[in-house]
Amino acid sequence: MYNFKNDYSEGAHPRILDKLIETNLIQQLGYGEDDYSKEAKSILKKKIANQQAVIHFLSGGTQTNLLVISFLLRIHEAVISAKTGHISANETGAIEATGHKVITVETSDGKLTPNDVTTVLKEHALAPHVVKPRIVYISNSTEIGTIYSLAELEALYVCCQQQQLLLYLDGARLGHALTAENNDLTFAAIAKYTDVFYIGGTKNGALLGEAVVFNRPELAVDFDYAIKQKGALLAKGRVLSIQFLTLFQDDLYLELALRANSLAMRMAKAIKDKGYSFLTESTTNQIFPILPKSVIEALLINYQFYIWKDIDSDYAAVRLITSWATDEKQVTNFINDILNS
Amino acid sequence: MYNFKNDYSEGAHPRILDKLIETNLIQQLGYGEDDYSKEAKSILKKKIANQQAVIHFLSGGTQTNLLVISFLLRIHEAVISAKTGHISANETGAIEATGHKVITVETSDGKLTPNDVTTVLKEHALAPHVVKPRIVYISNSTEIGTIYSLAELEALYVCCQQQQLLLYLDGARLGHALTAENNDLTFAAIAKYTDVFYIGGTKNGALLGEAVVFNRPELAVDFDYAIKQKGALLAKGRVLSIQFLTLFQDDLYLELALRANSLAMRMAKAIKDKGYSFLTESTTNQIFPILPKSVIEALLINYQFYIWKDIDSDYAAVRLITSWATDEKQVTNFINDILNS
Amino acid sequence: MYNFKNDYSEGAHPRILDKLIETNLIQQLGYGEDDYSKEAKSILKKKIANQQAVIHFLSGGTQTNLLVISFLLRIHEAVISAKTGHISANETGAIEATGHKVITVETSDGKLTPNDVTTVLKEHALAPHVVKPRIVYISNSTEIGTIYSLAELEALYVCCQQQQLLLYLDGARLGHALTAENNDLTFAAIAKYTDVFYIGGTKNGALLGEAVVFNRPELAVDFDYAIKQKGALLAKGRVLSIQFLTLFQDDLYLELALRANSLAMRMAKAIKDKGYSFLTESTTNQIFPILPKSVIEALLINYQFYIWKDIDSDYAAVRLITSWATDEKQVTNFINDILNS
Amino acid sequence: MYNFKNDYSEGAHPRILDKLIETNLIQQLGYGEDDYSKEAKSILKKKIANQQAVIHFLSGGTQTNLLVISFLLRIHEAVISAKTGHISANETGAIEATGHKVITVETSDGKLTPNDVTTVLKEHALAPHVVKPRIVYISNSTEIGTIYSLAELEALYVCCQQQQLLLYLDGARLGHALTAENNDLTFAAIAKYTDVFYIGGTKNGALLGEAVVFNRPELAVDFDYAIKQKGALLAKGRVLSIQFLTLFQDDLYLELALRANSLAMRMAKAIKDKGYSFLTESTTNQIFPILPKSVIEALLINYQFYIWKDIDSDYAAVRLITSWATDEKQVTNFINDILNS
Repeated sequence: MYNFKNDYSEGAHPRILDKLIETNLIQQLGYGEDDYSKEAKSILKKKIANQQAVIHFLSGGTQTNLLVISFLLRIHEAVISAKTGHISANETGAIEATGHKVITVETSDGKLTPNDVTTVLKEHALAPHVVKPRIVYISNSTEIGTIYSLAELEALYVCCQQQQLLLYLDGARLGHALTAENNDLTFAAIAKYTDVFYIGGTKNGALLGEAVVFNRPELAVDFDYAIKQKGALLAKGRVLSIQFLTLFQDDLYLELALRANSLAMRMAKAIKDKGYSFLTESTTNQIFPILPKSVIEALLINYQFYIWKDIDSDYAAVRLITSWATDEKQVTNFINDILNS
Repeated sequence: MYNFKNDYSEGAHPRILDKLIETNLIQQLGYGEDDYSKEAKSILKKKIANQQAVIHFLSGGTQTNLLVISFLLRIHEAVISAKTGHISANETGAIEATGHKVITVETSDGKLTPNDVTTVLKEHALAPHVVKPRIVYISNSTEIGTIYSLAELEALYVCCQQQQLLLYLDGARLGHALTAENNDLTFAAIAKYTDVFYIGGTKNGALLGEAVVFNRPELAVDFDYAIKQKGALLAKGRVLSIQFLTLFQDDLYLELALRANSLAMRMAKAIKDKGYSFLTESTTNQIFPILPKSVIEALLINYQFYIWKDIDSDYAAVRLITSWATDEKQVTNFINDILNS
Repeated sequence: MYNFKNDYSEGAHPRILDKLIETNLIQQLGYGEDDYSKEAKSILKKKIANQQAVIHFLSGGTQTNLLVISFLLRIHEAVISAKTGHISANETGAIEATGHKVITVETSDGKLTPNDVTTVLKEHALAPHVVKPRIVYISNSTEIGTIYSLAELEALYVCCQQQQLLLYLDGARLGHALTAENNDLTFAAIAKYTDVFYIGGTKNGALLGEAVVFNRPELAVDFDYAIKQKGALLAKGRVLSIQFLTLFQDDLYLELALRANSLAMRMAKAIKDKGYSFLTESTTNQIFPILPKSVIEALLINYQFYIWKDIDSDYAAVRLITSWATDEKQVTNFINDILNS
Repeated sequence: MYNFKNDYSEGAHPRILDKLIETNLIQQLGYGEDDYSKEAKSILKKKIANQQAVIHFLSGGTQTNLLVISFLLRIHEAVISAKTGHISANETGAIEATGHKVITVETSDGKLTPNDVTTVLKEHALAPHVVKPRIVYISNSTEIGTIYSLAELEALYVCCQQQQLLLYLDGARLGHALTAENNDLTFAAIAKYTDVFYIGGTKNGALLGEAVVFNRPELAVDFDYAIKQKGALLAKGRVLSIQFLTLFQDDLYLELALRANSLAMRMAKAIKDKGYSFLTESTTNQIFPILPKSVIEALLINYQFYIWKDIDSDYAAVRLITSWATDEKQVTNFINDILNS
């Protein structure tokens, strides 16, 4: 059985493990004050072209989302998200557990537009009987594989600025977004057109770890207290910083994501060639083909993947995910199985 | 400069890194459903002699404490802790941030007794104007290096049972407690005389990780939701389970702790021989000698450690910590420096 | 300008004020231990035909909702509500502020059905990545004037029982529901087919106050702690108990509601006679006629009311509310203004 | 049995009830937008000599404390209180339930000094492992009957300003403080030397109600959202505003408090004359005499009061409270019983 269920089925890219071994017995300060943290942050600030940025390393996406959002909101404020957004659909009420409402917007492509935002604001005009929207949460790539263009992100950010909203981007799969064939964003553009974002490590070759970036340093003051309070401050911060040091000291991060995307696009092309359609227009490492149930059943003998959504009595959409570690031979096998289905 | 500040200055025991490399590219299910989790839990249940136990792997001590306590308490309930307890003194209000008061008790040795507990209950009799105590939180070894005896733990547990309180033991340094020269507790006794406890990995050779054990399975129902909600569910759960699999498949965990204790006791003996006294009667890897300030100043040239408490104009107490990774030569150097001081 | 905006524009029914004066200087115990509380609770238990019920008096609807829901839910659990439900639409994220997600369901009539509930359960099957639904929240009458029938409530309760869900009914306007012309529910039926409900005083003649009823006493254990903790325990509990003692020692509560309904139905009949339609099929004291904007503009000269929803360029729905204190002459005037419009 | 247990055993001052009746059927806007709120706020701003102040009316002390503190603190911040402070000792963890630690200070007289504050700051220097103190909470009069002098309050405020702390004064019994024989504070001085304070109604003649005053308007922005969210926004805000309109349109508030103090001082004088000592040096309406247990037993036949603290085998301290409504004859009786004891 080969696993196309997710992009975290394997451990870490071998160069990360090498670095862990190489540095293992060098004494370092705890709690993120290690030398590797300093070095990794310095490299990241260059990559995003923002020397003012404040960066912290955290362990996972839900942890990062709940920390950033609960830290930036006051008690009566809320966050706006697409209904498919990770904080709405997949995090066990983590945001609500910190006291804040997630206002959801139905979308076809998992992305928010300025119009979505202003509609929500109109619906929340009757102060003080409703929450006050304050953060706009987006994901890039989204939970259904789509990506934001530079123009889209800039327009959304301008809207947020006008409405005194903060724009926060969940980059659990940011590498996959930035290496998609139709992408025109860069790390620097992300840093320019968001207030806070995070660069996901876990789903792109790290053992664990997400790097949260406050583009405006004043937003980050005292964030270290919050990290400790929510149980996210690792005693051995080196575990996290070494992931990012390795992934970003050259272009490894983008190379790994590009590889994952390429394999997904190979699979997508075969599926399209075979005449099947897709639930979403993904150009990244998650694809959602709509397949006959008989084909799905046959594929499930050799491959693991999620059945995403029932379409009708004959068809269902499935989710296939590739990663930095996906075996090319298995992709070729899968393509052959599709073509012969 | 050699670091005696803490027991997490280095990475992981090399065998853990070996195991990470060995298993790195084997596909596993995410979110703690990996094979190594199953194996590690199975081994741990044997060690604690409780096949009914429910075990989860988490990343750090504060995370574990806030998860266990917020999960077990209802909104009006509170936790009792020694004032020196980690949840009271070192966790940035993590418990209060989940909505619960930490009722603190002044102690001389960092340990709670049945009398402490019943006194707190008497002081919280005026329902509903006060919180309702429900959990008793203890640490073993404590934050000041002392340990519980079997008789003490059993008496405390009996008291908790009589008063319908839950007993939760923070085992961030449980290995050091169980290998102290004056210890008469075992893993099995800990499991028998607490409701929930955790076995600390971070401070005893793991890269990160704590194993929380619910001795009564009914207390653990739905705990997985809480793990996810608080951002503590790692996508690559293997990172955590491999730590415990390696530390517990033989006696490595206890061996590492014993080594740390032995080095600390060597230092303690030299300090005592030199005629200095101690703030607490530690038999574990944290010692708190009271030294002349001139001696402290001289030692700080070559060694890093915390100045714990000002005693008078001439003396201060310092904290010295050893670990599985402490360099024996540095211990010898330190002892010589003390003896020549 | 006459106010049809709400049912809390005036003070209290005069008999309540009389009773406050009559009892004013009689010393009573504080915090809900007064004699009037005991008497009012005794009367209410008879009205609802449940001697086992546990009853508390609180100050307002949002306070009652957040108290009941936060008290009954564990940290990972959530409440299901119609999107129009008060906890979803009008309470400034009060439930989320206590840490819990409100799962919303789109409805046409503001009511939940067993099918709605089971659909939500299906959508929340992927534990532990989603919250666990535990309470079903309904309002009767609803926020848009509709009511539940006995058959509907019973079916919903049976569904909840089967799914191990609690059914909680918000009775801010329960009197108006029970005196609607198409109603077949009673206090006793409400008590039988819900786990917890509250009887609204504020919107039906009380100066303030809601009576929350736990039909199963085991659910109410320790609720007094929660009342105090959330700032809802009035020192002079007599203020609340005297409201309910007066409203329920005979049939005043239902009489007042019936009066409000009758006046609303008179207005509704005239509006229908004139040929206008309605947004919802209300039989209670809130009606939502769809009127030409020119008519609305003319009416707003003499009357205050909310413009509820824009329908098209010519029409909008408005909300008209009557109460126990509504001036009949003003109703007649309004009807004439409608008929002459 | 006559009740000296508290100052809320009776209803409201008759002039408040008169005003409720007089205004009862006048239609008013809901949620604190009524004319009486405007008028009462205008009067209060004059009394405190601060036209910039923002004032809101709430129902009770715990509600006010939790609202103000949770609104002003960010997630990692904490409040400092005397151990006897109401938020520490009597509110069922209400502050912790909003996510914040209450840092307590042992005091002999229930009051905080600049030295107390700077000591707490020193003990919370190890960021980010401890909470960040941000609010200093004091009560005047205190929970044990003592009061702050002008010099003490000013010194504390200057300290808070220097340390970037907010000073919040709980005035549940502010009237009693301001009419104590040794008082030199005024409403204007309170407004000048605190950031936020509240004027208690419930314990000084109101049916219910506390007036919270933000002396610096920028601190109050959006506070109305918080009021609604925590269930504290009464639909009929007139219930609260009429209390304060009546108490403050002339000097009724201070007159009522002065009366309560005078009666308590009469009792205190007799107790002192008889040769008994006191637990605290109260000059307000709560006194804490230390009496022989045999005397206490005899008094409990005719009077209700709290036994506050066991002193030794023969003596205990009791708490006696008088109010605006206390019967002078009962005070005389009590005095005679003491003198004859």
